[in-house]
Amino acid sequence: MPKESDFRLVESPVPRPASGEVLVQALYLSVDPYMRIRINGASSYAQSVQPGEVMVGGVVGRVVESNDPRIAVDDVVEGMLGWQKYAVAPAKTLRKIDPKNAPVTTALYVLGMPGLTAYFGLLDICHPQPGETVVVSGAAGAVGSLVGQIAKIKRCRAIGIAGTNEKVRFITQDLGFEGGFNYKETPDYTARLKDLCPNGIDVYFDNVGGSITDAVMKLLNTRARVAVCGQISQYNADRPEMGPRWLGQLVAKQAKVEGFLVHQFADRYDEGLRQLSTWLREKRIRYREDIVDGIENAPRAFIGMLEGHNIGKQLVKVG
Amino acid sequence: MPKESDFRLVESPVPRPASGEVLVQALYLSVDPYMRIRINGASSYAQSVQPGEVMVGGVVGRVVESNDPRIAVDDVVEGMLGWQKYAVAPAKTLRKIDPKNAPVTTALYVLGMPGLTAYFGLLDICHPQPGETVVVSGAAGAVGSLVGQIAKIKRCRAIGIAGTNEKVRFITQDLGFEGGFNYKETPDYTARLKDLCPNGIDVYFDNVGGSITDAVMKLLNTRARVAVCGQISQYNADRPEMGPRWLGQLVAKQAKVEGFLVHQFADRYDEGLRQLSTWLREKRIRYREDIVDGIENAPRAFIGMLEGHNIGKQLVKVG
Repeated sequence: MPKESDFRLVESPVPRPASGEVLVQALYLSVDPYMRIRINGASSYAQSVQPGEVMVGGVVGRVVESNDPRIAVDDVVEGMLGWQKYAVAPAKTLRKIDPKNAPVTTALYVLGMPGLTAYFGLLDICHPQPGETVVVSGAAGAVGSLVGQIAKIKRCRAIGIAGTNEKVRFITQDLGFEGGFNYKETPDYTARLKDLCPNGIDVYFDNVGGSITDAVMKLLNTRARVAVCGQISQYNADRPEMGPRWLGQLVAKQAKVEGFLVHQFADRYDEGLRQLSTWLREKRIRYREDIVDGIENAPRAFIGMLEGHNIGKQLVKVG
Repeated sequence: MPKESDFRLVESPVPRPASGEVLVQALYLSVDPYMRIRINGASSYAQSVQPGEVMVGGVVGRVVESNDPRIAVDDVVEGMLGWQKYAVAPAKTLRKIDPKNAPVTTALYVLGMPGLTAYFGLLDICHPQPGETVVVSGAAGAVGSLVGQIAKIKRCRAIGIAGTNEKVRFITQDLGFEGGFNYKETPDYTARLKDLCPNGIDVYFDNVGGSITDAVMKLLNTRARVAVCGQISQYNADRPEMGPRWLGQLVAKQAKVEGFLVHQFADRYDEGLRQLSTWLREKRIRYREDIVDGIENAPRAFIGMLEGHNIGKQLVKVG
């Protein structure tokens, strides 16, 4: 588990944008589970952050200086600008946000990477059908809370697994999941899942891994689809944790398990954002943010998220 | 591991076929890994064989009495008739075999269930592309030996994992796999696979599971496809063996793992058999049989197969 002392707040001169670049003043920083993998020092699906480098992350900010005709001063933009108050970036790597469309923070959430992750991961990997049972782990997090709601829009039963009773109340009472449980107070996940999923599990969207996933695997229906989005329970492990083998189950159930990264759907982001905007406007998708104030508190927010303290999207307000 | 004493040879009157049924005299019995699951007493993808019942299995036999116009006396047929010298079955559950097309034993192998398993499992689950690296475990077995040859027909590099040096010679020298190794004499599977697969692994066809599969998982390429056909290393376990978790790898590689059963492709068997016949006639597929004589030796052949003694298809000659 990272410690706050692993991070350092450093002051340096504000950089100047070259031709084709803009200078952005951060308004909100995003804090997401994938960041844990970026700092584990091992090879992974994306370049690691090395000690001394700026921490990665999505940012929504206001343009304060522009050397590119596509972006004007005062435009609100979203991009991978890292944990810093000011950042210079090529204009073409930034996405313009319309603050009249929705609150700008949604560009880091429902109308940003977590939204697209839930949308494509659930719909394109799992193809949920009306009446099917969809289970999601990390259900009160940014991605999980959207997965369950999209499952409901697709007329599935949504069952969520989360780590506090308040989170379970959030997903079932505020978001309308058909059921859920707090795994930290549940001795037998399999028995609880059997209760909540009397017709078995057709789709599993996994953000967590570990023994929660082991329990789900036992209850998969024939031709079940599992999307593996994250494995937050494993991110702090020095070496692979051991768990019961379940490939025999996949054969018996003719089931599929597929890992994915949202960027594999990059050429369809417009479609996803358009649909998510519509659902948001129609209030078929609701969301909750957990906003911490001050860039100096970003490490604490990050560690808190890894420990499961946040409900909904963890953000850091900077501007 | 089953013991020979778990089986009993019992004599009983030859049954008579009712209307729509035929009486078949067995010529060859098939011995296949899936049978181990049928006798484990647990629920599985197919009905278990209970103590006292006839052991399941595919059979090629000659019709000695027919009460159905579709099948004549002396026709050669294939069906799930179990380990017995004579069996009665509904004509509609039997497949007529043309002995002029290929030796009748191929109806239990290249032109039967193992052939279709290799064909659909590799092509439909894994979609191998020219130049890709295909790894198969249980490579000298009935299914594995065909998977590697179909991979080569599709212009992939075929690498096989097997349990004796003779098997490795068989797949590399007789069948033309680009490489292979004897896992029983290889201390570090991952290192050996890295040697044999310098461009990583795009497709893995798994018949075995366990630590062989763990090693393959570490070397999957981006967008790799894994077809899980069997897990013979696990079939004798009382409870799930523990192994290192690798779902995080699936995310990083955006890789897919899919279990399958050949019968999910039942409506396309004709297509598969037609293609396999063509490849067999063109000698693009070669095969090897391991034939034991006498129904009384079927249990020994079955146990030997589970212990990896056979090369190619294990059969029992009855007639």
